[in-house]
Amino acid sequence: MSLYGKDFICTQEWMLEELMAVLDLAAEMKRDRFSDRWTSILKHKTFLMFFYNPSVRTRLSFEAAATELGGHAQFMTPSAGRFKTQKQAGETIEDAAQVMARYVAGIGIRILEDKVPYYGAGDEMLREYAHWADVPIINMADDRFHPCQGLADVMGWAEWYGGGPGQPDYDALRGKNFLLTWASGALARSWCSVQAALLIASRLGMNVTVARPEGYDLDPEVYEWTQQNCAASGFEFRVTSDRTKGYHGAHIVYSRNWVSPQAYRDGVLQKQTEIEKAMAYPGWTTTAERMALTDNAIFTHPMPVDRGSEVTDEVASGPRSAVYDIAENRLHVQKALMALTMENW
Amino acid sequence: MSLYGKDFICTQEWMLEELMAVLDLAAEMKRDRFSDRWTSILKHKTFLMFFYNPSVRTRLSFEAAATELGGHAQFMTPSAGRFKTQKQAGETIEDAAQVMARYVAGIGIRILEDKVPYYGAGDEMLREYAHWADVPIINMADDRFHPCQGLADVMGWAEWYGGGPGQPDYDALRGKNFLLTWASGALARSWCSVQAALLIASRLGMNVTVARPEGYDLDPEVYEWTQQNCAASGFEFRVTSDRTKGYHGAHIVYSRNWVSPQAYRDGVLQKQTEIEKAMAYPGWTTTAERMALTDNAIFTHPMPVDRGSEVTDEVASGPRSAVYDIAENRLHVQKALMALTMENW
Amino acid sequence: MSLYGKDFICTQEWMLEELMAVLDLAAEMKRDRFSDRWTSILKHKTFLMFFYNPSVRTRLSFEAAATELGGHAQFMTPSAGRFKTQKQAGETIEDAAQVMARYVAGIGIRILEDKVPYYGAGDEMLREYAHWADVPIINMADDRFHPCQGLADVMGWAEWYGGGPGQPDYDALRGKNFLLTWASGALARSWCSVQAALLIASRLGMNVTVARPEGYDLDPEVYEWTQQNCAASGFEFRVTSDRTKGYHGAHIVYSRNWVSPQAYRDGVLQKQTEIEKAMAYPGWTTTAERMALTDNAIFTHPMPVDRGSEVTDEVASGPRSAVYDIAENRLHVQKALMALTMENW
Repeated sequence: MSLYGKDFICTQEWMLEELMAVLDLAAEMKRDRFSDRWTSILKHKTFLMFFYNPSVRTRLSFEAAATELGGHAQFMTPSAGRFKTQKQAGETIEDAAQVMARYVAGIGIRILEDKVPYYGAGDEMLREYAHWADVPIINMADDRFHPCQGLADVMGWAEWYGGGPGQPDYDALRGKNFLLTWASGALARSWCSVQAALLIASRLGMNVTVARPEGYDLDPEVYEWTQQNCAASGFEFRVTSDRTKGYHGAHIVYSRNWVSPQAYRDGVLQKQTEIEKAMAYPGWTTTAERMALTDNAIFTHPMPVDRGSEVTDEVASGPRSAVYDIAENRLHVQKALMALTMENW
Repeated sequence: MSLYGKDFICTQEWMLEELMAVLDLAAEMKRDRFSDRWTSILKHKTFLMFFYNPSVRTRLSFEAAATELGGHAQFMTPSAGRFKTQKQAGETIEDAAQVMARYVAGIGIRILEDKVPYYGAGDEMLREYAHWADVPIINMADDRFHPCQGLADVMGWAEWYGGGPGQPDYDALRGKNFLLTWASGALARSWCSVQAALLIASRLGMNVTVARPEGYDLDPEVYEWTQQNCAASGFEFRVTSDRTKGYHGAHIVYSRNWVSPQAYRDGVLQKQTEIEKAMAYPGWTTTAERMALTDNAIFTHPMPVDRGSEVTDEVASGPRSAVYDIAENRLHVQKALMALTMENW
Repeated sequence: MSLYGKDFICTQEWMLEELMAVLDLAAEMKRDRFSDRWTSILKHKTFLMFFYNPSVRTRLSFEAAATELGGHAQFMTPSAGRFKTQKQAGETIEDAAQVMARYVAGIGIRILEDKVPYYGAGDEMLREYAHWADVPIINMADDRFHPCQGLADVMGWAEWYGGGPGQPDYDALRGKNFLLTWASGALARSWCSVQAALLIASRLGMNVTVARPEGYDLDPEVYEWTQQNCAASGFEFRVTSDRTKGYHGAHIVYSRNWVSPQAYRDGVLQKQTEIEKAMAYPGWTTTAERMALTDNAIFTHPMPVDRGSEVTDEVASGPRSAVYDIAENRLHVQKALMALTMENW
C-alpha cells in the first residue's frame, strides 16, 4: 500500500488501512520526534501553505512539520497575487496549480466558509487544485472538512484510552460513546472540524451522538456517511436536541459552536445573523456538572476554546482535558501524512 | 570568470558569457535538481527577499531556490519598518542596506511602477541598495527590468527548440524570429518583463519584432540596446503597428499588455486612465488563427496570463504553449544565479 | 552553570556571569560564524517569532540566527488568530502558550508601548507567556526592556575599546563614561532600548549619565537598578538636564528620542501629543561639535537612526560610529542566547 502522490481532502475517501498507516507512523514519530529516520524525508523540498484564511495552530504545526522532515514550508496568502475564486476574477486555478506544482512537493490549502459564496464551494476549489496539480493537495481546513484535525482528535483519544502520549490504542476506542454537542457562543464557527470528527470517530467503531438545538443540523451527506460508518461496524448514530442526555455514559465529550444550515444569504455568510441566532440557545456549555454524568469522559476540542461559552474553565483546564495533547498531535499526524504522500521512501 | 559578488539588475550590463554561465548551470541544475552538488552551496545562509510589490511566482521560486541550495530565504515587505523611498521619509537606504548586508548573503528586491513617482525610480532605488550593500543585489523585477524572467524565457525557448526540458540549445535560437506583441486587457501591466525579453532575445541572435498600437512604445533606451544587440549579431529589430504582420514566419510569440509611456501624472501611475486607454485597442489578442500564420511558433508569456485578452485559452493551454516550462525555469535560473553570485565555490 | 530552559526578559534578572556566558559565546560565534560547532544546535527545531509590533532588524537577525543554528524561525503576527490582550478578548495566553510550547523550542515576543493600555503591560504579557510555556521566552523588545539590544550594545562597545570585531574586551569598559542623552525628533520612541542600555552598562562597571529635558525621566525602577549597579561596582550614576555637560569626557555617546512618562491617557499611548511635546526641545542632537567635547567617544544607537534629529549625518556615518557593528551583534548575541537556552549541548 503506497500513499505516495495521494491528495488528502476528506478522510471518508481514504480506506481505513490508509488512515491507520498515517496514524501509526504519527505515533512512531511522536515517540521519537527528531529521529534520523524522518529528518531527511523532505530534505531541500518545499511544502506550500496557501492560507485563504489565517490560522495559528494549523500554520505552526504544518510549518514545524516541514522543518522536522528536513524541508521548508512556504507561507502564502491570496494577497500575494490575484487568484480566481468563486468571488473574483484573476489567475485561473489551472495556471496557478500547474505552476506551483513545478516548485513544490505538496500544497496545503485552507479556505473556510466566510471566503466562499455557498457551502461546499471551498471544498470544490480544493478539488480543482487537486485536479490540476500533480503534487498532493492537503486540506488544511475547508468549509466542509478538516481531516488533519480529525486524525489528531482520534490519536489523542486513543492515547488517553491507551498507553498515554505516543501510545495510542485504537482498539480501546471501539464501542466507546462519543458525544458531539453544539455549544453556545458568539463565534459562528465552521462545520469543518466537527464534521471531520464525526467521520473519523464513526470509522473507528464508536457510538456517535450529535446533540444540537433544532435547526442546527450539519451536512446531510456527512450525517449519512456517519450513519453508514457506524452501521458498518455495528454501532449507533443518534441525533438529539436534548442538552444533557448525550452526556450520560459518554466517554468522549466534544463541545463546539457552529453555524446553522441557513448561514448563507445572497452568496455571503451572514456571520452577525448567525451570532444572534445562537444567542437564543444559551447554556449549551460543557460544565463539570454535565461531565459528572459521563463515564469519566475526556474533554476534546480542536481549539481555540471559547472558554465560558463552549466549556467552563474548570473542564477545559481540568485533569480530563485532552485539548493540548490533541493540538500537539496535529504536528505528528501532519508529519506522517506529508512523509507518506510527498516522498517515496 | 567569476560572478561572485556581482549584482544582477539588468542583463544588458552582463557579458554574454556571464549570462551563458548562469544559463548553463541552470540547465545542469534542472537535469539533476536535488544533487549534492548544489544542496550545500548556501547552507545556513540567508537570502533576503524584499517585496515592495507582492508576488506569487517570484516569491515561490526564489524561496524554493534558497531551500534547494541549502539556505533560507526571508520574506520582508516595507510594512516591517519605515523605509525611505522617493515617496516617503524614513530609514535611509544607506543604513538599511548596510545592516541587511551584515545578516545575509544576498538581497532580492522587487519594486514596480505603481510604487514609485516616475518611470525608472524603482530601478534607481535598486542601484542605491547595490551601492551601499556589499552583498549581491538581485533584481526580482523593478519598473524597468525583470532579468530573471528574461533568462527563464530564453531557457524555455532554447529547450523547445533544443532537446526539451533541461536540454536547451541556444544555438538553435540563432536567426529565429521573435514577435513581442502588445495585447489588449484591463491590467495596465509593467514594462519590466517585456523589456527583459527584448534585451535577452536580441543578445542571443534573433530577429526581433515589436508590434504595438501607436503610442505604446517602450523605453527608447531599451529599443536602442535591442537595436544594437541585433545589429551586433547581424539580425533585425523592427517595430510595427500592424496587429498581424509580425506573426508571419514567427518562431516565438510573446503577447502581453503594457501601459503607455504617458502612464504617470503628478508622480502617480494613472492605472485607471491606462486601462481606459487600452480599451481603445481591442482585438490585440493572440489567437489560433494568428498562430497559424507563424512558422509553428511556440507561445511564451511570463504569467499570470490574462486569458481571453492577451491570448485565447486554446493557445495558452495548447500544445505549443511554453508558459509552464518557462515558469519552472524561474527556479533554475535563480538557483544558478544565487549559487554563482552569493558563494565562491 | 546552565542556561538551558531559562527565559530572557530583562538582563537585570540574570547574574552577570550568565550574561557574560552569552557574550563570550557570541564573540566566538562572530569569529567563526558558520562553524560546525553551531550549525546543528537547533537542527530541525523551530523558534517562534511572535510580533505584535513589526520589525526589520529584530526579525532579520532572529530569523538568520535560527538558520545559522540549523533551525527555522517561524514568523507570526496576532492577525493570524484572535489572541487575548489587555485590549481585546480572544484565546487566552494559557491556551496559546501551552500549545505553542508543544511545537517549538523557544518563543520570541515583541510587544511595544503602542499595543498596550499602560506602561509595563507588554512586559506583564511576556511574563504571562513565560508562566504558561515550558520553553524559553525571549524578549524581542517589550514596552520596558530590549535586553538583546542591550547585549549587542555592550558587545559593540567592548569591540571598539577592545580588539575590534569579534574581539570584545569587557574589562576595557570598566570606568568608562557612558552618556545616554535624550534626543529631539518626531518619532515618540520607546523606552525599551535605552533602559536596556542603562541596565547593562551599569552592570559592567561604567559611570552612567542620563541627560534629558526636565519631564523626560525614565522608569524610576530602572533608575534605581542602574544606581544600585553603579554603586555595587564603585561607579556613578547621574541625571542632568544640561544638553552638553554630559559630553565632557564621555567615551560612549548614545542619543535617542523617547516619550515622556505622561505618554498614556485613557489607556492609549498619545503619540501625537508626545511628538508635539518633544518639539519644545529642539537642538538635543548629537553633533560633531558636541562629540569634540568627549574623550574621543564612539557613537552608539540601536537603529533606525533618525538622522538630523537624533544625530547628524556627519556623526552617524563618521569614523567613530559603531551603529552597524552593533546591529550586526544582534545576530551573534541572539544566536548565543538561543543556543544556550533552547538546547542542552
